[in-house]
Amino acid sequence: MASCTICASSDKKNVKFRKERDTFGELDVPDDKLYGSQTVRSIMNFPIGGLEERMPYPIIVAFGILKKAAAKVNIEYGLDKGIAEAIMQASEDVISGKLYKEGHFPLVIWQTGSGTQSNMNTNEVIANRAIQILGGQLGSKTPVHPNDHVNKSQSSNDTFPTAMHIAVAMEMRDRLMPGLVALRDTIQAKSKEFENIIKIGRTHLMDAVPLTLGQEFSGYATQLSYAIDRICATLPRLHYLALGGTAVGTGLNTRIGFAEKCAAEIARLTGIPFETAPNKFEALACHDAMVEVSGALNVVACSLMKIVNDIQLLASGPRCGLGELMLPENEPGSSIMPGKVNPTQCESLLMISTQVIGNHVACTIGGTNGYFELNVYKPLIVSNVLRSIRLLGDGCQAFTKNCAVGIKANEEKIGKIMHESLMLVTALNPHIGYDKAAQIAKTAHKEGGNLKDTAIKLGILTAEQFDQWVRPEEMLGPK
Amino acid sequence: MASCTICASSDKKNVKFRKERDTFGELDVPDDKLYGSQTVRSIMNFPIGGLEERMPYPIIVAFGILKKAAAKVNIEYGLDKGIAEAIMQASEDVISGKLYKEGHFPLVIWQTGSGTQSNMNTNEVIANRAIQILGGQLGSKTPVHPNDHVNKSQSSNDTFPTAMHIAVAMEMRDRLMPGLVALRDTIQAKSKEFENIIKIGRTHLMDAVPLTLGQEFSGYATQLSYAIDRICATLPRLHYLALGGTAVGTGLNTRIGFAEKCAAEIARLTGIPFETAPNKFEALACHDAMVEVSGALNVVACSLMKIVNDIQLLASGPRCGLGELMLPENEPGSSIMPGKVNPTQCESLLMISTQVIGNHVACTIGGTNGYFELNVYKPLIVSNVLRSIRLLGDGCQAFTKNCAVGIKANEEKIGKIMHESLMLVTALNPHIGYDKAAQIAKTAHKEGGNLKDTAIKLGILTAEQFDQWVRPEEMLGPK
Amino acid sequence: MASCTICASSDKKNVKFRKERDTFGELDVPDDKLYGSQTVRSIMNFPIGGLEERMPYPIIVAFGILKKAAAKVNIEYGLDKGIAEAIMQASEDVISGKLYKEGHFPLVIWQTGSGTQSNMNTNEVIANRAIQILGGQLGSKTPVHPNDHVNKSQSSNDTFPTAMHIAVAMEMRDRLMPGLVALRDTIQAKSKEFENIIKIGRTHLMDAVPLTLGQEFSGYATQLSYAIDRICATLPRLHYLALGGTAVGTGLNTRIGFAEKCAAEIARLTGIPFETAPNKFEALACHDAMVEVSGALNVVACSLMKIVNDIQLLASGPRCGLGELMLPENEPGSSIMPGKVNPTQCESLLMISTQVIGNHVACTIGGTNGYFELNVYKPLIVSNVLRSIRLLGDGCQAFTKNCAVGIKANEEKIGKIMHESLMLVTALNPHIGYDKAAQIAKTAHKEGGNLKDTAIKLGILTAEQFDQWVRPEEMLGPK
Amino acid sequence: MASCTICASSDKKNVKFRKERDTFGELDVPDDKLYGSQTVRSIMNFPIGGLEERMPYPIIVAFGILKKAAAKVNIEYGLDKGIAEAIMQASEDVISGKLYKEGHFPLVIWQTGSGTQSNMNTNEVIANRAIQILGGQLGSKTPVHPNDHVNKSQSSNDTFPTAMHIAVAMEMRDRLMPGLVALRDTIQAKSKEFENIIKIGRTHLMDAVPLTLGQEFSGYATQLSYAIDRICATLPRLHYLALGGTAVGTGLNTRIGFAEKCAAEIARLTGIPFETAPNKFEALACHDAMVEVSGALNVVACSLMKIVNDIQLLASGPRCGLGELMLPENEPGSSIMPGKVNPTQCESLLMISTQVIGNHVACTIGGTNGYFELNVYKPLIVSNVLRSIRLLGDGCQAFTKNCAVGIKANEEKIGKIMHESLMLVTALNPHIGYDKAAQIAKTAHKEGGNLKDTAIKLGILTAEQFDQWVRPEEMLGPK
Repeated sequence: MASCTICASSDKKNVKFRKERDTFGELDVPDDKLYGSQTVRSIMNFPIGGLEERMPYPIIVAFGILKKAAAKVNIEYGLDKGIAEAIMQASEDVISGKLYKEGHFPLVIWQTGSGTQSNMNTNEVIANRAIQILGGQLGSKTPVHPNDHVNKSQSSNDTFPTAMHIAVAMEMRDRLMPGLVALRDTIQAKSKEFENIIKIGRTHLMDAVPLTLGQEFSGYATQLSYAIDRICATLPRLHYLALGGTAVGTGLNTRIGFAEKCAAEIARLTGIPFETAPNKFEALACHDAMVEVSGALNVVACSLMKIVNDIQLLASGPRCGLGELMLPENEPGSSIMPGKVNPTQCESLLMISTQVIGNHVACTIGGTNGYFELNVYKPLIVSNVLRSIRLLGDGCQAFTKNCAVGIKANEEKIGKIMHESLMLVTALNPHIGYDKAAQIAKTAHKEGGNLKDTAIKLGILTAEQFDQWVRPEEMLGPK
Repeated sequence: MASCTICASSDKKNVKFRKERDTFGELDVPDDKLYGSQTVRSIMNFPIGGLEERMPYPIIVAFGILKKAAAKVNIEYGLDKGIAEAIMQASEDVISGKLYKEGHFPLVIWQTGSGTQSNMNTNEVIANRAIQILGGQLGSKTPVHPNDHVNKSQSSNDTFPTAMHIAVAMEMRDRLMPGLVALRDTIQAKSKEFENIIKIGRTHLMDAVPLTLGQEFSGYATQLSYAIDRICATLPRLHYLALGGTAVGTGLNTRIGFAEKCAAEIARLTGIPFETAPNKFEALACHDAMVEVSGALNVVACSLMKIVNDIQLLASGPRCGLGELMLPENEPGSSIMPGKVNPTQCESLLMISTQVIGNHVACTIGGTNGYFELNVYKPLIVSNVLRSIRLLGDGCQAFTKNCAVGIKANEEKIGKIMHESLMLVTALNPHIGYDKAAQIAKTAHKEGGNLKDTAIKLGILTAEQFDQWVRPEEMLGPK
Repeated sequence: MASCTICASSDKKNVKFRKERDTFGELDVPDDKLYGSQTVRSIMNFPIGGLEERMPYPIIVAFGILKKAAAKVNIEYGLDKGIAEAIMQASEDVISGKLYKEGHFPLVIWQTGSGTQSNMNTNEVIANRAIQILGGQLGSKTPVHPNDHVNKSQSSNDTFPTAMHIAVAMEMRDRLMPGLVALRDTIQAKSKEFENIIKIGRTHLMDAVPLTLGQEFSGYATQLSYAIDRICATLPRLHYLALGGTAVGTGLNTRIGFAEKCAAEIARLTGIPFETAPNKFEALACHDAMVEVSGALNVVACSLMKIVNDIQLLASGPRCGLGELMLPENEPGSSIMPGKVNPTQCESLLMISTQVIGNHVACTIGGTNGYFELNVYKPLIVSNVLRSIRLLGDGCQAFTKNCAVGIKANEEKIGKIMHESLMLVTALNPHIGYDKAAQIAKTAHKEGGNLKDTAIKLGILTAEQFDQWVRPEEMLGPK
Repeated sequence: MASCTICASSDKKNVKFRKERDTFGELDVPDDKLYGSQTVRSIMNFPIGGLEERMPYPIIVAFGILKKAAAKVNIEYGLDKGIAEAIMQASEDVISGKLYKEGHFPLVIWQTGSGTQSNMNTNEVIANRAIQILGGQLGSKTPVHPNDHVNKSQSSNDTFPTAMHIAVAMEMRDRLMPGLVALRDTIQAKSKEFENIIKIGRTHLMDAVPLTLGQEFSGYATQLSYAIDRICATLPRLHYLALGGTAVGTGLNTRIGFAEKCAAEIARLTGIPFETAPNKFEALACHDAMVEVSGALNVVACSLMKIVNDIQLLASGPRCGLGELMLPENEPGSSIMPGKVNPTQCESLLMISTQVIGNHVACTIGGTNGYFELNVYKPLIVSNVLRSIRLLGDGCQAFTKNCAVGIKANEEKIGKIMHESLMLVTALNPHIGYDKAAQIAKTAHKEGGNLKDTAIKLGILTAEQFDQWVRPEEMLGPK
């Protein structure tokens, strides 16, 4: 095939077109594509951004699941079984990604704020694929009609928010959680590995009293465990589905029980405990649940920035920085500066986290808007949430594999700088009093000496006393 | 007294000063103030913003609670009972607000990022107040020492984050929740009140199929109910207290059991189920829990903006807008335009919500920073969260009382414009088919007529048929 | 060719590989690709996001321009002329987009924060293309070496920020400005077209005194003119180029005059008045100029949201909204609701503007970070700025063409609702006094009547007097 | 007087009240206050936040200037000269701050979005003060009427935005600029002071090639110089005044020439080149100019975060950090850790910068909203901009005085760690080739030795050669 299957740009010279009509007139539809006139019209009306701006793939998959579930439930409400089964089979080709890869879903995010055209794109593709299955002619709408059959008892206004919830819940489970868990587990293992390495603590970036490197990493592991809890805390509202609300939330043109049965079927297909939303007006008119999820991702981003910033600072050097950690070397350093290895995985994850915070603001503003019965910032909102999930999930995996697992402690340097610290003087307070301890510390600071030599020189205590009393390993917890 | 008690600016001409020394030398401390040299030094070093920039009052109250609890627990660990009881009594004067109102807490948010100086301000004030109680001399540090007694087994590094959690949890319970619940209950009552008023639905701001005004308000009530759920979902992590971690999280210089007992005592004093944080390193080094709370407030802001925007749009007019709702009139309108009443409560709450979103960004960025054992954006973070809570709580109360309870439906107008809508034609589809229905609608649209007249004129149906089939009250739910 | 040329994913089954070595060992490089080992290593280390996350295309083009200019200038400093000319010719294939479309630039944004790997990707591709031109063997680094020749006198640390400035300045000129100017001109023309249509003014969403629709649109046109001024106000700092700073800003390993000559050559190639940055330390270590540009885009987004929100509200209806404007109908409306046309172009542009605001926050946070001699959030920062420019530029073009040019005033409705307004009573103040005017307005408001009938009924004035005095056309300016 | 003059809370027990009427009925107005019924009603309707949430003081001053100018110009248009002069004299008491300090301006930010009540507060206070001057009775509106005289030819809708521009322009000039200039000049002087101190450069936090400390500081100074340029670039649009637009921008009820004369008079009074806005519809309906100013402040915040973060990292230690700089010690360190001095001024300024970024988001969202003829987020927008200016101005002054001027270089440490760096090996490339240089560096890295000893030990060069070729002072610029 002459066209690029990913970018959906048919090569005009070689591709044939079929004619399709809608109420606005006749249109050329590329004959190698399963979409129809509404999709083509959207391509024409919204030439905004390129390939990078397409409606996210997980939304397409979610639509496939939704359409399959609806077709199955619609049999109970009178949809012809043969047609329903063809729709279900066609939906499978959406769910598997096959039809996306073949370029049948070319629409961008920047369309109508209800995502109507992406719902119609799905309806058209599934209808045509079902027509193929049943031996009909593309574009004929016979025997499978995109609206009357594929979209039966549905509206863009309830399907798009349903697809949003399905897509986000799946991506959270399948992409974000594995990344977060892998990183948490790795950091937790490092905390254990480093449990006996005593190091200087730092507050305000200034030398403070000691702790173990394991304790320091336990803080990071706790942040990541809470991150997982935070994600989970948003799920109750994410699991509510709008389907059944149709155009304005009343459920006009749908049937009693349809909403509940579809939610149950979607839950079965995905293994996620979706339920029908108790209030469909809320489910169409706002996307608070998305803003809530985005807020949880925003906290994850904060946590990651804190952790990764610490790690790269601790690994700074090798000679002129802190040098307490050594990170894996993944790429050749500078061509002119041998030995220069940069914390590239750290930087990547820091940039990702920053992007997530920006995405959260976009999502939030989208959530403040929208009028009356329908929030019309849907593609904006969901694309930001899905992008954040994708980047965080992939980023955590890459960071875990290419950096975190290989972190090594530079025990020699850690020990050396801790013992140079003047803050260990704190341990002398109970023995010689604050004033004499302060005298030692201040003299050492002024003269650049170490605590022990200074203490002996000042005649305040003996080497034996110093060694007996100044023991960092005794400063690591309450008594 | 010649000074302003609120702004703490002693009138230099009339106020006497006492001399106090610290390691940096001698300082003049106003003799009518209970604070000491560290507070004075902070006033001198951080002349930033004015009165408006003071450390938020709930933080001061939380410090009072914390210091009272610590004094009580410290008795078990050897603190002199007389001193402890004087500290507890002095703490009461902090908790009640008496000492704040008298101007003893003048420090601003923009100090050190650990809030150390506000902890010391509290220590100094409580010590001096306890000294007064015990008949000693202000500034003498005898018999009650700010560090040795009031701050015993504590550090700024664990007390400030503890005060943050106490303050935020109390304000959420005492200020935000009452505001949110009042508004939710009012909107819910309105939903019931309006349950039989059928109106036009609007999607994309364009006329759509009908719903009841009660259904529309049920969406808002649901948003507010979920808002309450969202706030609650953040509490598990908010209830963890850092106290006991001291300088870097290890708990150096504290005693086994101190952390748990203090948390229990604080829980008893406040009635909030605080617990000691399982990991103190996390509790000092990051403020993910604050960013999480801020994220929940951010969703509340979105919800309020959606609801209030709808209400003010529905109330737009009185003649040239939608005019479906009538809001209470609270102020005289324009001096030149009689009858002009503006939705001022709506605008106030919209501005508040916008501020909350901005505060959330500041809080988030503060949460991404901070190095190693201590996040040093603490005053920034907590002041934003507390301001958001205060504004949302007060704003919801004002809006509820001065606007929401008095919202009235303009039933005449609602009925009139709904019946003018062309979208009711949808009801004819099952009877005359989509094409003929479309013909009626398009003709009416083109000629500016109503559906009924047009349908009759076109000879498609009779007046009786129209009245029988086009019944908005049949379009409000699934069949 | 079996691979997709856009997504750069070589079909492993059919593609041959060549071996390349770097200091980390041997690697397989697809033999149909011009990139080398550093690019391959980055693909392996950063499998983050998909195709959508690639380094933006304008950065690649900018690198082509930069490398071409540097090669030309390097001839003056001793680079072999044959090599230089081959590099320049190869650079042309980068500038034209040919090599990008063939998949030689596969790296994602989420790499090292200095963009080093994208600089090396360019060096590798240009070197290999130049080798092809000179008849050498791919991957041999002979006779053209990616570092020694293509990157001569350069460092990633000065080339990447240079490419950022070139790309952003070009996109601003070639994509954003045409979009903004087209929209401004169209709105200005509408302002003229509507200059005689008098309509009700609205403040606080409530009826106010009249103005012309042309005056209303003149406000929008002014916003857009200022938007253009704002963009221009950022240019002085955007036109500074970092090239010549090399690794840390000192210009180590470069030659006196190189920086100035390169900037001049880049200016010549692009037609944009670039200059060498007066201070290279600033140019590498921060990206304030990018945050500034992003801030200007942020204002543009605000302006567009205001304008577009107004337009879609004025076009709301057709029956149950304000109905003052009519927008072009671009797509079939709802399949069940004939005559329903949605303001899809408005929604698209509103979502785009929202995204721009989110991007600005990401860009800002990236700008706050970065340590010492190098800001390492470069790919994050520039990708957000470029995305904002692209979306705004494309979005304005689509909106102009598919919506703005076709906006029509519904003069009948505008006239009708204006005359119903009670605010016209203001015109009576000078004739009958405020009190009687108020009596008319309040009576009309209470009884639902119009001003004229009410005035006559109350016996305050005659029909002739009313028609003489209440003339909206006299209320449109100062006297 | 028994009440607190700052917080305006009259002591109910001791204060007498006068009765005032408006169209909503009779109200008690504290007899020691100059405001009237509209102010009291706003206090009652908006009990939101406390003292901290008052309308910013610079807005009140700006209103004083505006009212004074309008009164003077109104003489030309027929306002009684005696009344005008009393208004002008009363306005002086607003401008001087006297009446604010006495508690006559108690309203909060969270009122109507047009700021109407603050305009009325000013009108009432000035009218009553003028009445006092002319010997009349408070609250009598005779001989000076708040609307007819003080507000003559004005509307809240044009005065509030005018006050916004005046207040922001004055605060920028009087508070922000002095702070920025002081800091820039200090950093520039430090750059000169440090021009001969050669230090290690750091990119990606990792050791790189050297530069001088003076060069490093020159980058900061350049950032601050550009910050000043950026602020200035926003002024053209900030200097446009809305006055003369009255209710909707048409200028209804004002006189030809009034707008221009008022702008000229305000320019004269303030010394700032204000002009009347070319398009009043834009000036009322949006606040793009404020968002633009806020965007410039946002860049300033980024610059400060970069600079201050660097400084505090360079000053980290004293033993276990980088230790290249020494900051002034302003407060006693920890009571248990002698010698611990924290970079408190840095932290304060970092928190301020973070707040500014959050304020910018709030301001931006406010700027996206507002409908038709009037943006109604005015108090939100201006309060965020003014707070940012105040905090940045004060913060820069405090940081300059208490930190920047006292920064010292730790030359010994700087020299020591630079000479330990392996990156100096770069200087050997031209003499012994990259490969041998790399061999030295890698061996030194592996064995922990220094470059010179390693080079000699490997027999690659002599001590003399090393000393001759490895000269950091030769690595500081292009050749």
